Amino acid sequence: MSKFVYGIDIGGTSIKIGLFSLSGTLVNKWEIFTDLSDDGINILTDVYQSLKSNTIALDDVVGYGFGIPGPVVNGVVSSAVNLGWLNKDIKKELSPLLNNDNIFLINDANAAALGESWQGAAVGYSNSIMITLGTGVGGGIIVNNKVVTGVTGSAGEIGHMKLKEKDGIICNCGGEGCLETLASATGIRRNFCRRLKDSNLESSISCFDNPSAKMIFDAAKNGDEAALLVVEDVSYYLAYAIQLLAVVVNPGIVLIGGGVANAGDFLIDRIIEKYNKIAFSATKDLIIQSSMLGNDAGIYGAASLVIKND
Amino acid sequence: MSKFVYGIDIGGTSIKIGLFSLSGTLVNKWEIFTDLSDDGINILTDVYQSLKSNTIALDDVVGYGFGIPGPVVNGVVSSAVNLGWLNKDIKKELSPLLNNDNIFLINDANAAALGESWQGAAVGYSNSIMITLGTGVGGGIIVNNKVVTGVTGSAGEIGHMKLKEKDGIICNCGGEGCLETLASATGIRRNFCRRLKDSNLESSISCFDNPSAKMIFDAAKNGDEAALLVVEDVSYYLAYAIQLLAVVVNPGIVLIGGGVANAGDFLIDRIIEKYNKIAFSATKDLIIQSSMLGNDAGIYGAASLVIKND
Repeated sequence: MSKFVYGIDIGGTSIKIGLFSLSGTLVNKWEIFTDLSDDGINILTDVYQSLKSNTIALDDVVGYGFGIPGPVVNGVVSSAVNLGWLNKDIKKELSPLLNNDNIFLINDANAAALGESWQGAAVGYSNSIMITLGTGVGGGIIVNNKVVTGVTGSAGEIGHMKLKEKDGIICNCGGEGCLETLASATGIRRNFCRRLKDSNLESSISCFDNPSAKMIFDAAKNGDEAALLVVEDVSYYLAYAIQLLAVVVNPGIVLIGGGVANAGDFLIDRIIEKYNKIAFSATKDLIIQSSMLGNDAGIYGAASLVIKND
Repeated sequence: MSKFVYGIDIGGTSIKIGLFSLSGTLVNKWEIFTDLSDDGINILTDVYQSLKSNTIALDDVVGYGFGIPGPVVNGVVSSAVNLGWLNKDIKKELSPLLNNDNIFLINDANAAALGESWQGAAVGYSNSIMITLGTGVGGGIIVNNKVVTGVTGSAGEIGHMKLKEKDGIICNCGGEGCLETLASATGIRRNFCRRLKDSNLESSISCFDNPSAKMIFDAAKNGDEAALLVVEDVSYYLAYAIQLLAVVVNPGIVLIGGGVANAGDFLIDRIIEKYNKIAFSATKDLIIQSSMLGNDAGIYGAASLVIKND
């Protein structure tokens, strides 16, 4: 009888569920809606119902890995604001239902980094870093094939590396000058509109249309001057963050993922060019490239916790 | 018959040798002169002679740990400029002489961090960082009780975290704005003299006397305005580097060591005050304090490689 593993990535909008063979092949995947009502009290039972209704019997499941949008400390979700969770002990709640103790938790950005390290763009590198550029900026740090979590689950909070002393824009964390305010999709839009307002530049994009990061990157590719300036800014601050990461943990590869990374080589080439100018000499061999698994990175990483532990 | 371990810290001026019991007690320690002639060709035989002449028979020595002033990759010293060494395979050279294969190598700053983690100020913390402020600035990063070395042995090169985009002073590494140019003893002197030259401040210290970092700190303690400004600068940049380290690896404790750290709470209190203002909220519980083992940290860390592996 074949045995399986689930990798489950709980997000604020949807929950991604991946069924993996024990050898790590993604056999099936689907999504369910995230019910945020009543502080997310239904989320875990929804997951359970969805797993139970699948054709694979729960008895054939070796274990479950969960990616969580918040810090995980000692196997407990200390807080996941987007879900309404506080000190949530997923293992305690789900073990009796699933009749299985083999339940592992990991922060979602760390899960994505681990997924890329296991079966994505960082395969073959025991030391890697993934930076996820989405609505916010997240990250995961892999040292000797293991995720670095830190004492309060805040390791890899790359979005809150403070890179500018003064910036005039307050980050979600309350700080100023964070990478998140400089290189997230939200930050890119805001900085584009600021550039446009503060300069005499003309642009094909109007800030009244609430432009997306993709629109701004597309305009830059077409030679839009204001958009190009912002792409230069974004790639500079990413290069700046990466030179810091390089002398701190000295990885072999840094991956750029998330929606903003869809800009592809147009962004990556600029980051590399700027990185090479400022990096510490002994870390110049660092590879910087796009991630590979896209939105599936999280389910891969979550599943790998079970498979690697088995 | 009692068995022992040697922890040996090879520096550019002297070589510190520590004899430890298997339970980790420092039984005896001494120093020998570092012979830098002929690209340091005599260093290892000098160490061997010194060990052989000790009353403890080499047959009673379980193993040897070496701290090296340069990056160590896969057990080989890729380069130690201060010693004149390039691609030095210490284990291969010493094993036959010592009749012992149990030889471990580690970068000296990493050795100090590991020593503090083993028997110093970071005992009880599985995740810690040590920053050494001397002629240069070094560091070591401990994750899950192990040193992070990185792919080219450059992890923990905290002195080369680039913190200022433009500074006008070129670091030994060729870069600009490195923590080393801002917070090393050399950097403190240079920045003090720059402050003095660029301002109308009076100071009890003259830059013609080539003041030491200690003199500058002492003057600051006595209310010297120019010196105080520099102490504020140094503590700000250290706090700034620590806030970055905190969101990257999220340690429980950061230790400040090296000659400059002899300034004690006068420096530490200022770093903490500034850190609390800029740190990411989830990392504010971080402890920042002085290291404990002083110049012995390296021999402790080197010895611990043998004892922990045994």
